[in-house]
Amino acid sequence: MKQAVEKHKDQFIEELKQYLRIPSISSLSEYKGEVRRAAEWTAGALEKAGMEHVEVIETEGHPLVYADWLHAPDKPTVLVYGHYDVQPEDPVDLWDTPPFEPVIRDGKIYARGATDDKGQLFIHIKAAELFMREYGKLPVNLKFIIEGEEEVASPHLGPFIEGNQERLSCDSVVISDTSFSGKDQPAICTSLRGALALQMTVRTANSDLHSGTYGGGVPNAVHSLVSLLDSFHDDQGRIAVDGFYEGVPEPAEELRREVAEVPFDEEETKRELEIEDLYGEVGFSFKERTGIRPTLEINGITGGFQGEGLKTIVPKEASAKISCRLVGDQDPRAVYDAVKRHVEQYKPVGAKVHLEKFIQADPVAMDSQNAFIQAAAEAYEDVYQIRPLFPKEGGSIPIVEVFGRVLEAPVVLMGFGLPTENLHAPNEHFHLDNFTKGIETVTQYLQKLS
Amino acid sequence: MKQAVEKHKDQFIEELKQYLRIPSISSLSEYKGEVRRAAEWTAGALEKAGMEHVEVIETEGHPLVYADWLHAPDKPTVLVYGHYDVQPEDPVDLWDTPPFEPVIRDGKIYARGATDDKGQLFIHIKAAELFMREYGKLPVNLKFIIEGEEEVASPHLGPFIEGNQERLSCDSVVISDTSFSGKDQPAICTSLRGALALQMTVRTANSDLHSGTYGGGVPNAVHSLVSLLDSFHDDQGRIAVDGFYEGVPEPAEELRREVAEVPFDEEETKRELEIEDLYGEVGFSFKERTGIRPTLEINGITGGFQGEGLKTIVPKEASAKISCRLVGDQDPRAVYDAVKRHVEQYKPVGAKVHLEKFIQADPVAMDSQNAFIQAAAEAYEDVYQIRPLFPKEGGSIPIVEVFGRVLEAPVVLMGFGLPTENLHAPNEHFHLDNFTKGIETVTQYLQKLS
Repeated sequence: MKQAVEKHKDQFIEELKQYLRIPSISSLSEYKGEVRRAAEWTAGALEKAGMEHVEVIETEGHPLVYADWLHAPDKPTVLVYGHYDVQPEDPVDLWDTPPFEPVIRDGKIYARGATDDKGQLFIHIKAAELFMREYGKLPVNLKFIIEGEEEVASPHLGPFIEGNQERLSCDSVVISDTSFSGKDQPAICTSLRGALALQMTVRTANSDLHSGTYGGGVPNAVHSLVSLLDSFHDDQGRIAVDGFYEGVPEPAEELRREVAEVPFDEEETKRELEIEDLYGEVGFSFKERTGIRPTLEINGITGGFQGEGLKTIVPKEASAKISCRLVGDQDPRAVYDAVKRHVEQYKPVGAKVHLEKFIQADPVAMDSQNAFIQAAAEAYEDVYQIRPLFPKEGGSIPIVEVFGRVLEAPVVLMGFGLPTENLHAPNEHFHLDNFTKGIETVTQYLQKLS
Repeated sequence: MKQAVEKHKDQFIEELKQYLRIPSISSLSEYKGEVRRAAEWTAGALEKAGMEHVEVIETEGHPLVYADWLHAPDKPTVLVYGHYDVQPEDPVDLWDTPPFEPVIRDGKIYARGATDDKGQLFIHIKAAELFMREYGKLPVNLKFIIEGEEEVASPHLGPFIEGNQERLSCDSVVISDTSFSGKDQPAICTSLRGALALQMTVRTANSDLHSGTYGGGVPNAVHSLVSLLDSFHDDQGRIAVDGFYEGVPEPAEELRREVAEVPFDEEETKRELEIEDLYGEVGFSFKERTGIRPTLEINGITGGFQGEGLKTIVPKEASAKISCRLVGDQDPRAVYDAVKRHVEQYKPVGAKVHLEKFIQADPVAMDSQNAFIQAAAEAYEDVYQIRPLFPKEGGSIPIVEVFGRVLEAPVVLMGFGLPTENLHAPNEHFHLDNFTKGIETVTQYLQKLS
């Protein structure tokens, strides 16, 4: 199929550009129409690829897209999952080119969603299309379930999977929404952290107050929030919330060795990100901290006057967005309760604290010796001439745990991104070389399963 | 003059509304034209009042307005200072009516600048106008110096005073930019705190990073900022910056008694502001904390993702606006240096911290037995039938110290605001009863000096 990919790649890239031009930001309500447009575009691309039963399925949120091709009796059935929604572009002024006007520079396509996940999802649609073009059929049975709410924690996909087990039944799920370990080192992630995300809002008075008249005599919402947030970590980089570490396994020597095998250049990372020093939980390496240890990060903070210049007020309200990554047997529900207890215990005088939960997802781990994962590893090796690693990813794809559990099928995380591709950040991009090699790898994979 | 005030008050209030409609926000550069319009409007009002040598004086920032009437030989010369600039209206959605469309409800005029300081300044212009209308002359020599940069710390007025000592020479300065102690209790403030305001910005990496990939392994700018900010106070509400309290006097029993005399209802304040508890430095009362003790307040904080929903990033930058109120012999320059040293000592791993100074002002105290202050007290008593108190105000009017020192003249802080009038906050307003009684009081005062 290498020649077929080569022949059509310019056309495929043009189509990918169309896809990336749609600002399908699922978290911002004003983009609702654009998210729907992306769903319809996805359905159109599946039709064009020769898939059947293509359907845009309504949910209470953004729609799902389903398609299948089931004419390979006695062959396994593979369910492809991906998402057509993207992160907000904010802060838009740090993008070198507009986030929804894709451009190609140095063999990379720059746009929001390029690597997460439109570019990676499109690989599977185009692999199917090539089979249909070249042979008029697929080597296996194929189903697609594509959602538009991955970036807002998939609130409707989970219930849909639970309610449509027959329709989605399969021998394996394949997802391309993860990264290589480095430029030329493919990887099949075999562990994902769980997640808990929440917003914490502190209120003190019913109005901002003049800091000359009231300062020093009344609670200040920003002081209260800052004090609470600072109490979440101790001076060893550990999370100081009582009960937080419940269910976190002592990392086995075996696991630590597997983590250490994935190459990591501390000095280069520091140089690349222009950070003075790495920082984290005492007693663990960077790879361990970001892969197999739990975290609690403040993602944003806001309160009081933030305009140009100065306004001497005592702010009445302040809030922070917080997300935790969870591992092992940590239960996001129990962690939420622990955070809630911590806040009650440590909240400063006069602070009224409100917590709102955004996301919760269980951690998940896969067996690298599974036959589907091994077939995927061989497909990578055929195309890239190097055996993939099996890293433990720090990120969360909350739905992976649901797929594995409800459909009782192994999940293969067949990523084609690079860790440096600025996902969730300005100047997101995707290496086109991995787009075309990705299509080759997926065609190899499906042939191997046949 | 009571009848004259009564006769013209509707007209005066209509003119005040015109004045309040001009959004002369000095801290926001896009309002530059409006600030100038307010300067010209002020000059026009002084012309109309019969003042002479009216001049809009250019500075490198917003203009000053000067006027005088000097035809009372052998009578003292009074210099009136005020400011025509206002605070930003932010957060605009908390205003019940638009900040620059003045409306009257329950005898109060609502608009940004109503009490701080257009309404209070206008009292003096209208008092002069009444004398000129009724008698064709003033009982004393009068000078006006009105600025448009009070809310941004008067960067050009100080040098102007230093360079124009002859033109501004006077026997006393009178300023109406302070408050009563309560609804029917006039007050002449005899102490103002100094001020230091700054912005602190923390940077870590060159880009926001995905919290799943990097969280727990790299410095987080919001964590760093929060940790630094939380280190500024100890758990007794004291400021934990080494050297901060240098120059702060142990409050004398006499002073504490004078402070305690000003009435304060803790329960009512809590109810009115809807705060659960007062909070501040251990060992001091609310009035002491907000009047004669120094403070360090965070006025605003910002960093990372603050939009709707969620974005799982490790923020690269975060900043806070901080202002200190200073007392006694505290030197704002020394306090700034102390904060800087503190930041260097406590800044977390990987945090690059930048400080920017906005304001510095020395504390100032007046002698309540001064003849001008005593004359003002009698004028209040004539109109309000009650002797004013001599409170120690927590706020800062940085230029007061400069007037007193450079012109060698006593400053009389003859305020007509109320502490509940939401200055620097949404729904700022001014009691019209104090507007008209204020005009009466000022005319009484000038007659007494004659």
